[in-house]
Amino acid sequence: MQGDNHVTVLRLGHRPGRDERMTTHVGLTARALGADRVVMAGSASSRTDTVVDITDRFGGPFEVETTDEPKRLIRDFEGTVVHLTMYGEQIQDVEADIRAAHAEGPLLVVVGAEKVPFEVYERADYNVGVTSQPHSEVASLAVFLDRLYEGRELDREWEDPDRVVVPMETGKKVVDPNDREE
Amino acid sequence: MQGDNHVTVLRLGHRPGRDERMTTHVGLTARALGADRVVMAGSASSRTDTVVDITDRFGGPFEVETTDEPKRLIRDFEGTVVHLTMYGEQIQDVEADIRAAHAEGPLLVVVGAEKVPFEVYERADYNVGVTSQPHSEVASLAVFLDRLYEGRELDREWEDPDRVVVPMETGKKVVDPNDREE
Repeated sequence: MQGDNHVTVLRLGHRPGRDERMTTHVGLTARALGADRVVMAGSASSRTDTVVDITDRFGGPFEVETTDEPKRLIRDFEGTVVHLTMYGEQIQDVEADIRAAHAEGPLLVVVGAEKVPFEVYERADYNVGVTSQPHSEVASLAVFLDRLYEGRELDREWEDPDRVVVPMETGKKVVDPNDREE
Repeated sequence: MQGDNHVTVLRLGHRPGRDERMTTHVGLTARALGADRVVMAGSASSRTDTVVDITDRFGGPFEVETTDEPKRLIRDFEGTVVHLTMYGEQIQDVEADIRAAHAEGPLLVVVGAEKVPFEVYERADYNVGVTSQPHSEVASLAVFLDRLYEGRELDREWEDPDRVVVPMETGKKVVDPNDREE
């Protein structure tokens, strides 16, 4: 997010035919909730289109990349590596430490899908569970980012949007941002 | 959640062949993050099995139901109705009011998928956006519940689990709860 150290979300490869939509939602959630970049690995690489399209229409900055070498990206990352897993330490116990690390440098947030290689657990500076219950990598990512930024991501400004949603009690209002500025 | 007024999550029908996994994740997220019940409507009704199975294995209480009449459920609900939508008021602006309403009575949280009928917007006491950006109903539900309970859901106790994950810095540890109590 602008004014903060960079946050990259790495989506590991998903099971083809099963998790395509989840991967798209990981990318969209990363963008909406303050991350700067999503990298989709292996089979997840096919899901970049929607995220690029939403960024074009609703604004950035937000980068969308793919990789065939996610393990190398994790191993060589210069910064703090967080791996979201239900087996990890509880978020309420480690979030303050992670915020402190993020104040010092960039963060890589690894989001799994199919079985995650043990090397990822070992390389991660923090294995973090949003509860120790099985639920959703999208839900975990969302709660993690909201707590990382302590809600500041909700006020994020978007550059160069073609359209802007105006919050309303009832109904839908979408405007051209040039009109809104008048 | 035990000790709080009931929270029901209603998942509206999804697009067949596209959002099955999202519906499962809505159900699992509702359970993990403190809701008491999920109701899956129409085409979403086929996705109850995984949520029931996880509740059997990891504990409850958590109810899983289906309905063919989601509009009636919303219309007749005796309590406060919240509809999560990117077009709604911003969560940071209304969450305190919703917490106050929840202190007084039960809450119904409506999560859409395909186009949501306008009646839902009209009946809802609060149309709430977790950002005004397109992302994920699972992410919105997760942030909403975490803020509703102000993090208390992370310490939720589970009754009658067959297995319990023990949080760890590295690796995976799953125990039989009877062993853990020794």
